[in-house]
Amino acid sequence: MNYETPLFFRVMEYADAAERDVIDMVSGNPDWEPPEALREGLREYADLEPDRFQYPPSEGLLELREEIAARRGVDADQIVVTNGAGEANYLAMARALERDSGSEILLTDPVYPYYPGKTTMLGGTQRFVATDEEGQLDPDGVRAAASEETAAIVVNTPNNPTGAVYPAETMRELVAVAETYDAVLISDEVYDHYDLSGAFASALETDSAHRVVTNAFSKSMAITGARVGYAIFPPELVANAKSRHMLVNVATTRPGQFAVLQALRETGPDYYERNRERLRERVETFTDALEAAGAEYTTPRGSFYVMARFEGYPGTIANVERLIDEAGVAGMPGEAFGESRTEWLRFALVTPRVEEAAERLSSYFE
Amino acid sequence: MNYETPLFFRVMEYADAAERDVIDMVSGNPDWEPPEALREGLREYADLEPDRFQYPPSEGLLELREEIAARRGVDADQIVVTNGAGEANYLAMARALERDSGSEILLTDPVYPYYPGKTTMLGGTQRFVATDEEGQLDPDGVRAAASEETAAIVVNTPNNPTGAVYPAETMRELVAVAETYDAVLISDEVYDHYDLSGAFASALETDSAHRVVTNAFSKSMAITGARVGYAIFPPELVANAKSRHMLVNVATTRPGQFAVLQALRETGPDYYERNRERLRERVETFTDALEAAGAEYTTPRGSFYVMARFEGYPGTIANVERLIDEAGVAGMPGEAFGESRTEWLRFALVTPRVEEAAERLSSYFE
Repeated sequence: MNYETPLFFRVMEYADAAERDVIDMVSGNPDWEPPEALREGLREYADLEPDRFQYPPSEGLLELREEIAARRGVDADQIVVTNGAGEANYLAMARALERDSGSEILLTDPVYPYYPGKTTMLGGTQRFVATDEEGQLDPDGVRAAASEETAAIVVNTPNNPTGAVYPAETMRELVAVAETYDAVLISDEVYDHYDLSGAFASALETDSAHRVVTNAFSKSMAITGARVGYAIFPPELVANAKSRHMLVNVATTRPGQFAVLQALRETGPDYYERNRERLRERVETFTDALEAAGAEYTTPRGSFYVMARFEGYPGTIANVERLIDEAGVAGMPGEAFGESRTEWLRFALVTPRVEEAAERLSSYFE
Repeated sequence: MNYETPLFFRVMEYADAAERDVIDMVSGNPDWEPPEALREGLREYADLEPDRFQYPPSEGLLELREEIAARRGVDADQIVVTNGAGEANYLAMARALERDSGSEILLTDPVYPYYPGKTTMLGGTQRFVATDEEGQLDPDGVRAAASEETAAIVVNTPNNPTGAVYPAETMRELVAVAETYDAVLISDEVYDHYDLSGAFASALETDSAHRVVTNAFSKSMAITGARVGYAIFPPELVANAKSRHMLVNVATTRPGQFAVLQALRETGPDYYERNRERLRERVETFTDALEAAGAEYTTPRGSFYVMARFEGYPGTIANVERLIDEAGVAGMPGEAFGESRTEWLRFALVTPRVEEAAERLSSYFE
């Protein structure tokens, strides 16, 4: 079996190996500080008794699940603490495919490339529903593509790569489509703390036995390397998801869970607001420069990404590598995100050198 | 789909909820100190720049893979750093089943219960090969059970629960059986630092494209909660295993990898020898007391476990719960490990109260 593995690590390696200075805008790795309480949590953990270095409960530390449950308005029993949103999505998609209610996964185009990779790995088939130019998803389009074969609908809001934030109405209707076809809506909300629009609506707002919400602290706390995330299942679906989690990973890293718990408890809203404000400024700086350069581009309503289109320079992996070598800016090829964005490049605004990057792009393409 | 999930967490919860004092001998959680360099590694990590809090390479930190590679005599490219031995075994078993060379997994009886759980989850079938009373596995028995349908043979040495350590000859012949049937020998060597016999032989000693070795730092460094392990694949099999790792977990926790790397570099052989010596003393104390109580028992040549058999007290989950309530000792039911040990109980020697536990058992069963 050959999986299509996402290209992120390949492009990052290419950029690292380049001889010239390269501004890294490849992956969604925040360049800002994690919460101080996160660092302090790791220090405290280092001094705990030996028993605290041993297996946590498989489903996650109870205190952490309770903190998450209180914030999300769900029961702690519905939560599995996972190895990042990556594992959370894997568990959710596996769970949907195991219900013997279809083997097809509906994905959006453009798509976050891990979703089709997971679908193939899990033995599912995939069907893509196009989003509009703004990245908005029309629930009627999803309904038209859905059938008895639909096992799951996987969406991501705020969206990577389009920056779209789906309104509450869309989320409600997507849950309704999942209910109609006895499928599961899987809503990956890992960028929820980077909603710049104020319009973000979690799938949790619509109570249903047919939706799973996945999330992580990777982006909100700027700790993609810690690998602490979670999935919230309906009570009907949670038991087998916990079993799979146990059989794949046994448990999620305990020092990471401990530090995240400290950070959740002790980090105020100003930390998150500061990060959003920084992102807003970068979006403005970068899109202003793209505008001046005469490029087409997207203005994200959430998440970290701007997509840009330069005349005669399609979003292929070859062109991305050329851009690294010749312009000193590393992005992701649009073709990695699906058919509809093959002309585009995606840039992650997770560098303080956003202005410089925009200038490099302007002068390269002028 | 219903998986059989291992009972460890269930028994631990029952013991935790008991009103009386209970000596916990359920799970293989070391009660001794992790290396000081491991703690120091976490402290150092807590003070690193934000970029060090982001995704490590998916396959693992290069320096960690190089340290492991040097110790194990393999190429760093063959190594995937995993979320403990749990994920390492999952990747290895999935890889074996994907080769289109059979869908049956040969397991031993008694067996570590995660292996049949993973087999079922991955859509494989299982066949058990009995070990002898000492827990030794006769390669001829494995050869007799193997067929074109065999995808993998999964063994664990030093063994949980029997304490057997397979001699080099056995390991060589198991690799040969895997080669004959185009299968993969998966050798889980997570207790390699707790070989009390001096006879331990890694499957790595037999070069072959048909063997995968899994391991972790969970037991050797007394950090089952950190979730850092690894799998060593033949070059022919490693690429897809890395893809699956990426698609399931993206990467393994970075603070854990960083701390393990420090500990690997700075921890001398005396740390590991001290842990073996402590274990030797506990084995002697516990088995002496069982002997005095007239019980049947095993004397482990490696790993953490003693199996004991008390007349008229079969190793059921009901009896384990009764033993928690009435004797104040928590073990694991033999039935969790397979047909052949249903009369037995398994006790993990990971408590300083081994002598007291043995006394409680003696007086309960006398």
